[in-house]
Amino acid sequence: MTADIFPHLKAACADDWNAYVHHRFVRELAAGTLPEDAFRWYLAQDYLFLVHFSRAWALAAVKADRLDEMRHAVATVNALINHEMSLHVEYSAGWGLTEEAMAALPEAPANIAYTRYVLDRGHSGDLLDLLVALAPCVIGYAEIGAWMDEGRASGLATWDGNPYRAWMEMYAGAEYQEVAADVRGLITRVAERRIGQDPMASGRWGSLRDGFAAATRLEVGFWEMALAPQPLPRAGA
Amino acid sequence: MTADIFPHLKAACADDWNAYVHHRFVRELAAGTLPEDAFRWYLAQDYLFLVHFSRAWALAAVKADRLDEMRHAVATVNALINHEMSLHVEYSAGWGLTEEAMAALPEAPANIAYTRYVLDRGHSGDLLDLLVALAPCVIGYAEIGAWMDEGRASGLATWDGNPYRAWMEMYAGAEYQEVAADVRGLITRVAERRIGQDPMASGRWGSLRDGFAAATRLEVGFWEMALAPQPLPRAGA
Amino acid sequence: MTADIFPHLKAACADDWNAYVHHRFVRELAAGTLPEDAFRWYLAQDYLFLVHFSRAWALAAVKADRLDEMRHAVATVNALINHEMSLHVEYSAGWGLTEEAMAALPEAPANIAYTRYVLDRGHSGDLLDLLVALAPCVIGYAEIGAWMDEGRASGLATWDGNPYRAWMEMYAGAEYQEVAADVRGLITRVAERRIGQDPMASGRWGSLRDGFAAATRLEVGFWEMALAPQPLPRAGA
Amino acid sequence: MTADIFPHLKAACADDWNAYVHHRFVRELAAGTLPEDAFRWYLAQDYLFLVHFSRAWALAAVKADRLDEMRHAVATVNALINHEMSLHVEYSAGWGLTEEAMAALPEAPANIAYTRYVLDRGHSGDLLDLLVALAPCVIGYAEIGAWMDEGRASGLATWDGNPYRAWMEMYAGAEYQEVAADVRGLITRVAERRIGQDPMASGRWGSLRDGFAAATRLEVGFWEMALAPQPLPRAGA
Repeated sequence: MTADIFPHLKAACADDWNAYVHHRFVRELAAGTLPEDAFRWYLAQDYLFLVHFSRAWALAAVKADRLDEMRHAVATVNALINHEMSLHVEYSAGWGLTEEAMAALPEAPANIAYTRYVLDRGHSGDLLDLLVALAPCVIGYAEIGAWMDEGRASGLATWDGNPYRAWMEMYAGAEYQEVAADVRGLITRVAERRIGQDPMASGRWGSLRDGFAAATRLEVGFWEMALAPQPLPRAGA
Repeated sequence: MTADIFPHLKAACADDWNAYVHHRFVRELAAGTLPEDAFRWYLAQDYLFLVHFSRAWALAAVKADRLDEMRHAVATVNALINHEMSLHVEYSAGWGLTEEAMAALPEAPANIAYTRYVLDRGHSGDLLDLLVALAPCVIGYAEIGAWMDEGRASGLATWDGNPYRAWMEMYAGAEYQEVAADVRGLITRVAERRIGQDPMASGRWGSLRDGFAAATRLEVGFWEMALAPQPLPRAGA
Repeated sequence: MTADIFPHLKAACADDWNAYVHHRFVRELAAGTLPEDAFRWYLAQDYLFLVHFSRAWALAAVKADRLDEMRHAVATVNALINHEMSLHVEYSAGWGLTEEAMAALPEAPANIAYTRYVLDRGHSGDLLDLLVALAPCVIGYAEIGAWMDEGRASGLATWDGNPYRAWMEMYAGAEYQEVAADVRGLITRVAERRIGQDPMASGRWGSLRDGFAAATRLEVGFWEMALAPQPLPRAGA
Repeated sequence: MTADIFPHLKAACADDWNAYVHHRFVRELAAGTLPEDAFRWYLAQDYLFLVHFSRAWALAAVKADRLDEMRHAVATVNALINHEMSLHVEYSAGWGLTEEAMAALPEAPANIAYTRYVLDRGHSGDLLDLLVALAPCVIGYAEIGAWMDEGRASGLATWDGNPYRAWMEMYAGAEYQEVAADVRGLITRVAERRIGQDPMASGRWGSLRDGFAAATRLEVGFWEMALAPQPLPRAGA
């Protein structure tokens, strides 16, 4: 028996979770109908998001008390800053937005709210509090990638000619799906060690559930922010 | 010569600062015309804000390297959690909203964004980075209180019969004005020690300026949030 | 039933605990035979210890997720920096060692090891990890004070004419005993919430036990350090 | 002009620095006369040291405000936990001490003092405070490696048949020397940004100098600890 905490966490905020992984932003992205300025704004903000999300994973390495878990956390930072962010840089370069210009943009408040909330869960709590706050992003994007992959048949996702196909391929792809599964395994092991086999029986359940739900709602807020795009600087401008 | 950093910080984000201290929320509060549900929503969120703002001041005590500065930080936490928050508890009790119910409310995203941003400035930087991010709240409320006091004559503030008079009295009052002046003095001393007599000549100026401006914009976001009130639980409900 | 974790923690490091609370340093202090230079060196280092121990309690306020626990932590910082440290200042003033001179002394490595270990348990873990690492100091000094009080009859403690009587009175006194009992109650409540009613059944037991034992051994190291006193500056020197 | 802060930092604690890089432990290691049990004890404790030193570099990634500096910090964690620690594992395996057994050893107090001091400098200060506290280890080992390399000619170092030759090769080798030079460059750049071109004119100079000196003395304490070896578990025991 393993104590996978996710079914419980998701069930406890089912409406929020559904609003997040099936948000209009991702549905339109999958359909290829998302306005390009929304996608650009999202991608630029997500670049800034990943900077601070990487800092949160570095904090996980600070807080890890097993060497293999420290290695896992550091490998994740590496994957984020050397791999996942390069997707953003390539897309943006195609629009004449350099990495330097993107890095200099102000973070939107919805963006600040999410990353700093996660970091604070880490500073105020332990490794489990931190990982549970990180989870909606890592696990949720894998779910989104998975339904986009399955949506080929049902028509929910249009892959041919979709301008956002590279994004879809990244999150639906085997590599990202494996990253997310590994993170899920890590959280399960840390949860077993720190709250035991029955998460909902733990005195920490209420706090973990609320932390996960809050982070999930902040993901919804991120999509909302992306649907109200701000102008971006252009090369030469 | 002392190196008061505030005139420089405010000048560098003059529009944001003005949007904050003269926001429609505070102008209507001073006029006594602010809808009560906006004030209630603000006050309940501000109660939650003060919990995390107190944590940020406790972090200042962790980061202080002089005993008198540690004492100052801890005295501020005391003032916040034993004095300033009691205003909120009294007001809310008058509306049938208990402290327990208020403490159990979810924080609005604009609220999360601000307090966690401040905490992260503290964790990622030093005492000066933290204090500069705390400053817009402490100093800005003192400015708001001051213009409400001066506004008696000009008619910008209506004191007689104003339902928010207790709030105005707190921030316009000598005690709060002194607290803010003391905090300003603390920040000036820490700034002198860490960046010298000429703040704008320091290599840290850009980062401090941006941190102050970001915190100021998050204050504006807090007022905006208050103008879109959510329903609050009522006693017996 | 309450889940007082201390009997378990102490039993798991019984030899270390005994070596700490009945160390030669405290036995000679109680007998009044401790060389004065050892006591002076101890007190000067303990002054520096309390600065960083206060920072650790401020960190507890940062990490607390209940307002009453934040209040408790902040009240403890207050008691430490405004009350307990004044004993040190008074004693030292009697020897011509000013507070400024004491504050400027280098911390002994055994001193650094203990306070920074506690702070790191707090940063890497949660509130419980931090409080358990703080506990040997708070609870141990209360045990030492208690046996000194009881030792009047058995002759283990000589109160009349003991040059360290003010120290003994502080830790044997009702006020400090109550502080320690309150801290013990706080830790018990936090432990119940975070690991449940049966501490030794928790997956965190090994880590908490080791953290407590390590902190206890660092207390032993502190007494050892005090028995090898270094020269102190004198007024006018 | 670049503002290399190291000549100033070393000059300000010249005796401590000399006591560190020319300690009897390293002189005997270079001569090949160091008792094997001292080297074993050192290596086992250094393994534990590197775990927490890696955490300190992960904290540097949390605190970095430029992406290239975050990359540098994370690459350093990688080098430490995937490369430098493997030297320890190989040596120890040769003595029948497994990595698991080594990881389970209690840290010596001198070991705790150093790593936790560095971590606390990071938590209480900014990236520069942290890097300056990390520096004596990184830069000092490069100096030690360099004089061992030069000591071939003068006879200060015996390479042929030296049982500790693998250790000497690691730190004298081009790869480690480059790592240290890169870290030195990183610290110089961060120092320029945070305290300007003239480190000793900064109001932070006293604190940085003291942090560097304290960390250097804790390195001396580490060698002292190694010269009083404790028994290690053996395979099958």
